[in-house]
Amino acid sequence: MSGHLTIALDAMGGDLGPEAVIPGAALALQKNKNLRFMIFGDSKRIEPLMAAHPKLTKVSTIHHTDHAVSAHEKPGIALRTGRHSSMRLAINAVAEKQAHCVVSGGNTGALMAMAKMVLKCLPGIERPAIASLLPTVDKEIVMLDLGANLECNAEMLVQFAILGSVYARVVRGHDQPTVGLLNIGSEDAKGHEEIREAAAVLQQVKFPGRYVGFVEGNDIPMGTVDVVVTDGFTGNVALKTAEGVSKLISTLLKKHLKASPLGMFGAMLASGALKKLKNQMDPRLYNGGMFLGLDGVCVKSHGGMDSLGFSNAVLHAAEIADKNFNVRVASEIAEVMAQEQQIKPALEAGILPSELQELVS
Amino acid sequence: MSGHLTIALDAMGGDLGPEAVIPGAALALQKNKNLRFMIFGDSKRIEPLMAAHPKLTKVSTIHHTDHAVSAHEKPGIALRTGRHSSMRLAINAVAEKQAHCVVSGGNTGALMAMAKMVLKCLPGIERPAIASLLPTVDKEIVMLDLGANLECNAEMLVQFAILGSVYARVVRGHDQPTVGLLNIGSEDAKGHEEIREAAAVLQQVKFPGRYVGFVEGNDIPMGTVDVVVTDGFTGNVALKTAEGVSKLISTLLKKHLKASPLGMFGAMLASGALKKLKNQMDPRLYNGGMFLGLDGVCVKSHGGMDSLGFSNAVLHAAEIADKNFNVRVASEIAEVMAQEQQIKPALEAGILPSELQELVS
Repeated sequence: MSGHLTIALDAMGGDLGPEAVIPGAALALQKNKNLRFMIFGDSKRIEPLMAAHPKLTKVSTIHHTDHAVSAHEKPGIALRTGRHSSMRLAINAVAEKQAHCVVSGGNTGALMAMAKMVLKCLPGIERPAIASLLPTVDKEIVMLDLGANLECNAEMLVQFAILGSVYARVVRGHDQPTVGLLNIGSEDAKGHEEIREAAAVLQQVKFPGRYVGFVEGNDIPMGTVDVVVTDGFTGNVALKTAEGVSKLISTLLKKHLKASPLGMFGAMLASGALKKLKNQMDPRLYNGGMFLGLDGVCVKSHGGMDSLGFSNAVLHAAEIADKNFNVRVASEIAEVMAQEQQIKPALEAGILPSELQELVS
Repeated sequence: MSGHLTIALDAMGGDLGPEAVIPGAALALQKNKNLRFMIFGDSKRIEPLMAAHPKLTKVSTIHHTDHAVSAHEKPGIALRTGRHSSMRLAINAVAEKQAHCVVSGGNTGALMAMAKMVLKCLPGIERPAIASLLPTVDKEIVMLDLGANLECNAEMLVQFAILGSVYARVVRGHDQPTVGLLNIGSEDAKGHEEIREAAAVLQQVKFPGRYVGFVEGNDIPMGTVDVVVTDGFTGNVALKTAEGVSKLISTLLKKHLKASPLGMFGAMLASGALKKLKNQMDPRLYNGGMFLGLDGVCVKSHGGMDSLGFSNAVLHAAEIADKNFNVRVASEIAEVMAQEQQIKPALEAGILPSELQELVS
């Protein structure tokens, strides 16, 4: 493929469907000329939109299907009845090595179920997780799981720590990313048993990140660590709470500024600064939930995204595929698992971390 | 006590101890002349501070003790060794009907453990929850549990919905507050089993709120419902994430405004609007975690609060005590429990909500 990266697109996913996907792909192509596209969906809706983007048309193939997975379909039903859906065909393209990665703005549960069945998990991974980049004061951090697994045992949390660390290395170039387990207090005795067990393992194993301990909700936006690890329920609630607070503050700020002529004039003068803030917090810049742990690159774009948001999901997917993320993850996982086989029985037998250190080294 | 409300204060709790508690009590007294205080702690630190507040001195008694519960002491140890601590003596004052309520900025786990042991739970309540008011676009909402119970079964979530509804009625004057269960999607099939079971019960029982369904993280700051119900782990993470994002945005806004003379000048002109925003989001205004479900009023002030924050916790506690919150809760709980005794066995037998409706009515 001579340096090209082929992206399989589910054109029917998301609230806007092709109206966000096609101009989004065109925008991504402007920023990365190496992209090529396989576009799956209703050609009657796709082709008229392509007309406005001759450069995109030149590097894309359109694969018509009448079927699409609806936004609220249950994953099990989507699996059984969605064999010819745009989502499924786009995932198949990755499994058949016709595309390097797939991007969809469709139903998250269905996308995860299909991607797991078709692409399979990497060796040693129990369950994939959804990861995303998030803005903080001075850098972007990685957080996972953002909603794939409602309940997570210690083993899964440890795997997420590894997946997230490799992701932070590949995407953000952190050499030794710091990793924290999300908890409700920083003391060792706090939190669920699974979290405390995961902490005990992460204190012992060598992995591509550096485990620094428990972190709390406020540590996420403060950027205290490079990688925040949590279960999918807590992660999803925290992410959506953060989005909501950001929206609340921007709503209130606008309201108060508009309430007086002086406020409006001041806002006009400070518009450069206000715009910088808005851009920095723009969720479209951080769009693209990576399904980490699959044997293939699958990225979920937020369902409500416009073309700018979708283009960023495409660019993220391309970056991950280009940097051989999965090959790197697979080898790191195998290495940590070998250590864990020594550590887990010891933990269960009640051996203290300090004694464990000697056992492992 | 002729209209007076007596507040027992743990003067040694919180990062600042008496330095926040004493001026905080003086501030609360300015706003509510009916307050009287019993102040527990190290009189060598308390008395010099009282000298600056003659009005407070007139309505307060100081009860010296050398003992204080430290911030990171485990609750079990605090229970055993803290019998003479300022925290314990302040709680005792409520149990002995010398005070109407207790306020402490100390160790949350220890305060909850002591309050539960000394004050006991209201009849029918399994576990108390921590509730707080939170700012949203156009009103304040109630959220619970914010950290008392890491894991919650359906029964507990149902009780929290009742506790939160009565709290919203008493404090915010909502006649029929809307109640949502925090989840990661609004569809019925989503989320943990406990949440879905609690939803099934709340759809059936008559209680002092109106159950409207599942809500997501972004619904908290958007104020979609008057009462958000969740387990203590998720609630604590969501609350701290919200605080962190609020701090992040204010940090970034200041940074960008200061980066250019135009931005600084604009900010000066718009300072009224910026100040309004800051005041509206000020966590000190919402300080005071209510321990709901106890047979006595106990309020936790955030450990990091200054005197203004502490004064609001005192005023909240006084309001709750004054409005006979616990008497109202006890009768509501008894009523719902009678209905639940019909509903729970039916749910377990697999009867559908529609059939249940007939059973109950």
